[in-house]
Amino acid sequence: MGIVRAHMMISVDGFTAGANMTQSKPFGDIPPEFLSWVFKLEGFHEITGGTGGETGPSSDVIRESGQNLGATIMGRKMFGPDDRIGDASWKGWWGDNPPYHHDVIVLTHHPREPLAMDGGTTFYFVTEGIEEAMRRARESAGDRDIRIGGGASVVNQYLAAGLIDELELQVVPVLIGSGTRLFEGIGQELKLEPIRAVPGREVTHIKYRVLK
Amino acid sequence: MGIVRAHMMISVDGFTAGANMTQSKPFGDIPPEFLSWVFKLEGFHEITGGTGGETGPSSDVIRESGQNLGATIMGRKMFGPDDRIGDASWKGWWGDNPPYHHDVIVLTHHPREPLAMDGGTTFYFVTEGIEEAMRRARESAGDRDIRIGGGASVVNQYLAAGLIDELELQVVPVLIGSGTRLFEGIGQELKLEPIRAVPGREVTHIKYRVLK
Repeated sequence: MGIVRAHMMISVDGFTAGANMTQSKPFGDIPPEFLSWVFKLEGFHEITGGTGGETGPSSDVIRESGQNLGATIMGRKMFGPDDRIGDASWKGWWGDNPPYHHDVIVLTHHPREPLAMDGGTTFYFVTEGIEEAMRRARESAGDRDIRIGGGASVVNQYLAAGLIDELELQVVPVLIGSGTRLFEGIGQELKLEPIRAVPGREVTHIKYRVLK
Repeated sequence: MGIVRAHMMISVDGFTAGANMTQSKPFGDIPPEFLSWVFKLEGFHEITGGTGGETGPSSDVIRESGQNLGATIMGRKMFGPDDRIGDASWKGWWGDNPPYHHDVIVLTHHPREPLAMDGGTTFYFVTEGIEEAMRRARESAGDRDIRIGGGASVVNQYLAAGLIDELELQVVPVLIGSGTRLFEGIGQELKLEPIRAVPGREVTHIKYRVLK
């Protein structure tokens, strides 16, 4: 059976997004360097259907993060802005062909029929909480891995529940200062074991095994 | 001329110490794993005058952090607990022979005569702020490096003032949850460039150049 993984971009001061998130600013108030490194990478372009870009360790790590996945779980804010979540015409941030190509389970309080997109992505909307979303994702994933896509509050809930096997941090050397923090509200019981550290040119990639 | 460096143990959730620091608990409420890894290391024992211990990458990093230093700057809480700082009989946490063996500049609001200890450590108490402390440390350090010893609030002040050249984080895979945070109150202007990432057995060591 596959494992459950999360791969999160995190600023060196611990944020995964800044304050003041809006539809045109899904990461809120951040320095541009928080995202710019990833857009340069060949591994990122491959995932999003493009070509070209920078090769090297960071590209390899990002490419790998998208491999062997059978399902993704995400929070409602990652699917859409607050004021569009109940809107049947909203089909996510990614256009007609989202870069998942597998089933995506969206945690929400708004029931909605499954939404099949081009390229093999189908969004399923689960209102019964994180454990039901995991059960549903396992059904989709078969023997492949499940990715907890984010945002941080969803990853935090799954970490607190002991349901994540591996957590990779892409540690970006910028400060965000205020916004959404990874690891909030979990408590000192959670222990991690570093299993890999990859020095990229701009970003450091640390992979942890989550000890139950 | 030497550079100005800081080397900080930081939990994966961004804390350098927990809440409720006391004289018997100088790091506050932390899981024991936050400190236990360093006490095992040969490189740490060497700095503190002991022998033996675990060799390997983490030991090498910690040994290196203590080399080529000509002065250390620390905050008053690192020198002593709040209620002892004005007490002439308080001579720091470290006994008669502190593990510095060079001049240590203590930032404080309490004027006090210099305090010469065994083994070449002399504590100087500076009440005129961080720039005067740096000037005084440079006088002591000559061509060698200056270490900003901590705590986090002192490192944060020097980072904000653009007075640190290199910052190394010993990223410890535990959660502290509340307490003292590195990088607080600095703002998004500060940029770092990763220059080294060393995967230790228990801890990941990331060294940054601070870009002005």
